[in-house]
Amino acid sequence: MTKRGKTRPDDPSGRYSYGGLERIMHERARLGILTSLASNPKGLPFNDLKELCALTDGNLSRHLQVLQEAGIVGIRKSTAKGRSHTRCRLTAPGRRKFLAYLSELEQVVKDALGDESEDGAREGLSPA
Amino acid sequence: MTKRGKTRPDDPSGRYSYGGLERIMHERARLGILTSLASNPKGLPFNDLKELCALTDGNLSRHLQVLQEAGIVGIRKSTAKGRSHTRCRLTAPGRRKFLAYLSELEQVVKDALGDESEDGAREGLSPA
Repeated sequence: MTKRGKTRPDDPSGRYSYGGLERIMHERARLGILTSLASNPKGLPFNDLKELCALTDGNLSRHLQVLQEAGIVGIRKSTAKGRSHTRCRLTAPGRRKFLAYLSELEQVVKDALGDESEDGAREGLSPA
Repeated sequence: MTKRGKTRPDDPSGRYSYGGLERIMHERARLGILTSLASNPKGLPFNDLKELCALTDGNLSRHLQVLQEAGIVGIRKSTAKGRSHTRCRLTAPGRRKFLAYLSELEQVVKDALGDESEDGAREGLSPA
């Protein structure tokens, strides 16, 4: 038993289940892809994304397909000067979903590192 | 091309690969277990942990075994009044590893939501 309600063992069931961490976005490589695209609102060419996320062609293609099928990422293919280009960006619903995911991620960090309580005491891991 | 160096497509390779998100801790259920234990430095009984993370007996046992084999979580079994009790807590190396993981997680959120740049402009997703 502790002084603060949120960490009492009799907290509501599922207090730390983090259902908002949707698996489709939580996968590590996809998290990198989504963060790259969030930082580049105009989208990114396939090759830049591959470089930024340190992924192989095959891996990036596979993850992009999953994200596209879920409506999170949009992919536009075009041809210029005889070469094909692939450009990827977050869709509007994808942006909203990723924001909701990030807010749950922030909650995890907050829960784990501990907040200041009213009397100034900290609980959780102290990064100091 | 953007004004800020960190999001230029010619950023160093792997800028968004997040190698510090160790898979053993990144799995959603395990992240919940580790956060529960980080918030309860004296450890938690198996049943409380099960409730807090909304996991079944089987699932929690399986994840705890993985975390124990990696030296991240310590498990103590005891018998009192004829009943057996299992108590779980983070080990000292586990705490350090989880802190390093959390610091990478904070970086993801920072990258995705965008920082204030010198001229006050934001890049990345705005939570507003």
